[in-house]
Amino acid sequence: MTDPRAILLVKCPDRPGIVAAISSFLFRHGANITDFDQHTSEEDTGVYFTRLEFQTGKLDLPLDDLKHAFSLDVARPFAMEWRLTLSSDRKRIAVLVSKHDHALLELLWTWKRGDLRADVVQVISNHPDLRQAVEGFGVPFVHVPNSKEQRDGAEARMTELLDGKADLVVLARYMQIVSPAFVSRWPRRIINIHHSFLPAFVGADPYRQAYERGVKVVGATAHYVTAELDAGPIIDQDVARVSHRDSVDDLKHLGRDLERRVLARAVRWDCEDRVIVHGNKTVVFA
Amino acid sequence: MTDPRAILLVKCPDRPGIVAAISSFLFRHGANITDFDQHTSEEDTGVYFTRLEFQTGKLDLPLDDLKHAFSLDVARPFAMEWRLTLSSDRKRIAVLVSKHDHALLELLWTWKRGDLRADVVQVISNHPDLRQAVEGFGVPFVHVPNSKEQRDGAEARMTELLDGKADLVVLARYMQIVSPAFVSRWPRRIINIHHSFLPAFVGADPYRQAYERGVKVVGATAHYVTAELDAGPIIDQDVARVSHRDSVDDLKHLGRDLERRVLARAVRWDCEDRVIVHGNKTVVFA
Amino acid sequence: MTDPRAILLVKCPDRPGIVAAISSFLFRHGANITDFDQHTSEEDTGVYFTRLEFQTGKLDLPLDDLKHAFSLDVARPFAMEWRLTLSSDRKRIAVLVSKHDHALLELLWTWKRGDLRADVVQVISNHPDLRQAVEGFGVPFVHVPNSKEQRDGAEARMTELLDGKADLVVLARYMQIVSPAFVSRWPRRIINIHHSFLPAFVGADPYRQAYERGVKVVGATAHYVTAELDAGPIIDQDVARVSHRDSVDDLKHLGRDLERRVLARAVRWDCEDRVIVHGNKTVVFA
Amino acid sequence: MTDPRAILLVKCPDRPGIVAAISSFLFRHGANITDFDQHTSEEDTGVYFTRLEFQTGKLDLPLDDLKHAFSLDVARPFAMEWRLTLSSDRKRIAVLVSKHDHALLELLWTWKRGDLRADVVQVISNHPDLRQAVEGFGVPFVHVPNSKEQRDGAEARMTELLDGKADLVVLARYMQIVSPAFVSRWPRRIINIHHSFLPAFVGADPYRQAYERGVKVVGATAHYVTAELDAGPIIDQDVARVSHRDSVDDLKHLGRDLERRVLARAVRWDCEDRVIVHGNKTVVFA
Repeated sequence: MTDPRAILLVKCPDRPGIVAAISSFLFRHGANITDFDQHTSEEDTGVYFTRLEFQTGKLDLPLDDLKHAFSLDVARPFAMEWRLTLSSDRKRIAVLVSKHDHALLELLWTWKRGDLRADVVQVISNHPDLRQAVEGFGVPFVHVPNSKEQRDGAEARMTELLDGKADLVVLARYMQIVSPAFVSRWPRRIINIHHSFLPAFVGADPYRQAYERGVKVVGATAHYVTAELDAGPIIDQDVARVSHRDSVDDLKHLGRDLERRVLARAVRWDCEDRVIVHGNKTVVFA
Repeated sequence: MTDPRAILLVKCPDRPGIVAAISSFLFRHGANITDFDQHTSEEDTGVYFTRLEFQTGKLDLPLDDLKHAFSLDVARPFAMEWRLTLSSDRKRIAVLVSKHDHALLELLWTWKRGDLRADVVQVISNHPDLRQAVEGFGVPFVHVPNSKEQRDGAEARMTELLDGKADLVVLARYMQIVSPAFVSRWPRRIINIHHSFLPAFVGADPYRQAYERGVKVVGATAHYVTAELDAGPIIDQDVARVSHRDSVDDLKHLGRDLERRVLARAVRWDCEDRVIVHGNKTVVFA
Repeated sequence: MTDPRAILLVKCPDRPGIVAAISSFLFRHGANITDFDQHTSEEDTGVYFTRLEFQTGKLDLPLDDLKHAFSLDVARPFAMEWRLTLSSDRKRIAVLVSKHDHALLELLWTWKRGDLRADVVQVISNHPDLRQAVEGFGVPFVHVPNSKEQRDGAEARMTELLDGKADLVVLARYMQIVSPAFVSRWPRRIINIHHSFLPAFVGADPYRQAYERGVKVVGATAHYVTAELDAGPIIDQDVARVSHRDSVDDLKHLGRDLERRVLARAVRWDCEDRVIVHGNKTVVFA
Repeated sequence: MTDPRAILLVKCPDRPGIVAAISSFLFRHGANITDFDQHTSEEDTGVYFTRLEFQTGKLDLPLDDLKHAFSLDVARPFAMEWRLTLSSDRKRIAVLVSKHDHALLELLWTWKRGDLRADVVQVISNHPDLRQAVEGFGVPFVHVPNSKEQRDGAEARMTELLDGKADLVVLARYMQIVSPAFVSRWPRRIINIHHSFLPAFVGADPYRQAYERGVKVVGATAHYVTAELDAGPIIDQDVARVSHRDSVDDLKHLGRDLERRVLARAVRWDCEDRVIVHGNKTVVFA
């Protein structure tokens, strides 16, 4: 049985000496760095981002003490926002879904197969249809009817179900608007899959919009949800070629493959602490 | 030396018997069909599109007589819009360009290498920079200064240069707006390359827009130019993955490859009579 | 409720008049052609392939009589190999699988969702592991132990299970060699997914071979099984980019997505009568 | 005018403290690290690879002294193979070519446009055909006839032309075998473009081989040349989908786009010191 690796995510103002400070600190405390990725944004006055993984088997301090020492020795002098987790930590994922099952099932199978560093702990839907499929995976399913009129009540009920019980909320083709108030409870912790290559075809029925515009590629976009609809930081996108032969239904069919693949990838990256949000953009250390 | 093939493009209201009528007519007159592609639009009440190629070596009539017979026997009863050309016919292409040379050079090489069923007969630019490169290919280069203030004069000059002398006008990163009046002289005969996957990032500086939105794919779109900017029928699109590491300049660099490839493909398809415009969309028999 | 469409697949020596003969015949009998695709091979002395779909609602003959008439009027004079089916016909698919579930599950979901013009009627495995997953879809699961020593018995048992009960046999990562004798019972009716872009990495453990060769793309290939291992006619292939960062396990992980997508597409095309085998190659009217 | 950046490439046995040693050394001497990429191979007993870029404007030592200090303080204790260059250094590229111009022209245009951190200093061909095209770029062209019989003389002549005058030799569709003796003079400094996705279709006429096997993707591979034909370390590969409609000529046509793109990318990566060869594989910090 091997020791878990630790993952360190850092964002701070760029200046000389950051790499030396981090790596010397870790070396002093017995950590062997196995992965090191960094990025310096050239916008603004320079922002430094890094993600690194290190072995924890020979640390000279318990992890909590190491965190404390890191905070004092490194993070504070460099004004870092940072986060240190273990590869054995598992986020708790709640999925919100309506009637389409493809994106949900992809997550459930990926999880079941052991390919997700997280657990799907709950599925909430505004329709009862997918109960059996979900419960077959041993995951609780809750039906919370939702519509324009009953939104407040529905969101109150969902908040009650989720608060303190989920670390990440995934909208796997949840066909209801979520209110800014709801979103604000989960900053950068709600991931949505939009069925177009945003910013094209914002809003309802993007495949029909795509069909009517006569585009030759369709796409899907996974993004963090913000108060503004379809405008949050993009985590991943992918596209497929289409032609005049493809009807709206064909686009939907093709799009399902894109949606489930893009969403699963984005959720996996989030759960492995590979994503840093900066402004309305993401740095993805994939 | 082999006889040229003929290419027949047809658009008409859908109804039974079209294939039988066309193919029986051609068989009767000694034509052997080597390619047959068709599409029926399910929008409206049904529109039938077809493109076919046939050998002309054993025709029992001269081509002009065959056209006349086709018009009477087939096209009229089925209310067809149609067009019959030979694979030996070559469109005359005029290219409008500014300072970026990549899309232009791709067309010139493709032509030079014998891969374009057309001839580049003229290059017009609002800058003098590319004269030497163009003339090196033996193609006339005309510098027609253009700007918001002098647009009318510039377009009058270009019209004079183009009228009756070009069959297709290609905007290979021509960084000036062309007026609706100019466009209307060349219906469905002006192809533009836009440096985004339309309809995303309409208008100026799409790579900067893409950078600022933080997208994970960038693209390019070749389309026929209509009076409404960036809204004409799309012929082809392609995309490439990008990441947070890519600066605006990186996107431009990557985009150049997309632009030249997509534009060259669209021009080739147009020159081989593979594109039918219907409403604001295209049927591409590629 | 709409009438089913008919699908006609034809292969014959190329000569003038084929399109006219087929389309006139269909028009005379009240069929409206909705899709028409053809290909002429330039190898040998020319082979003509076509696939077309037509509406059956206004046929003047019952389908069996139409087939009989087609045989006499068209197929015989042109020496056609042909096949006429209805879009309402559904092939019976048997899946052979070992322990990997991804390719199997993709087929089962696709079928469950109604996207496959076929029925999965049986799953046979040389391991008992996937029984529960399969039976959850309401599909019978049979465990037939197999290994080099017991191959004859295992294949006899499988033949008994399959003969007359399946139209298509899909090897969804079935990790046993099937004998030439078994293959010969199902000519062009066994589809296998090989986990490399054939002809690269024939044989065992292709991901390890790919890793050791240091390739920058990995792939998957769906093909009809012939007596010669990994050498049958290819139906579809796809690839994904990889880098030095990817371990053998990463390649397997990535490859799973390729395998299930490529296999599902190949099976769908076969079930919709879109594939004609010619020599050791396929014509795919996708 | 900004100072050039320095690029450091390192390969050494993996052990704790490497990052700390490098980054502390650089920080002490006034270097600000702008890019840092690393990889640890899990094969063997662990090999550590890194590429980093740093600003040189505030170094406290001249570059040669810095190299000397690095050698003593860091490289020796960690048993590093290393290389330190400036972004202003430009490799001298010699291109060997036969009659196909596409891969050569792509390099020449990329260079002309300023997108290559290198200079094309010489083109050698076994045919005289491309002289004019090459000389139009102001690059010397030398015709060195070559064939099986005259190989020794031809290679002697080329060696004379290249020795001490080129840092990188690019085979841009050079259709002659080069001898092991010639290859051994340029270890890891000859890049070839092979027109298939190796290891498929080794040897002559890969497009015909691909056509005859009936594959659904074709590809191109850029690799360092070693004594064994088509078996050297792969730098980059790419593929395109094809179908039964594509003749051998169509594959060649499509392949040209792949070849020039893949080769240009591989050459760019080599010139920017992004490639480390390890055994028969490459680590590419792209």
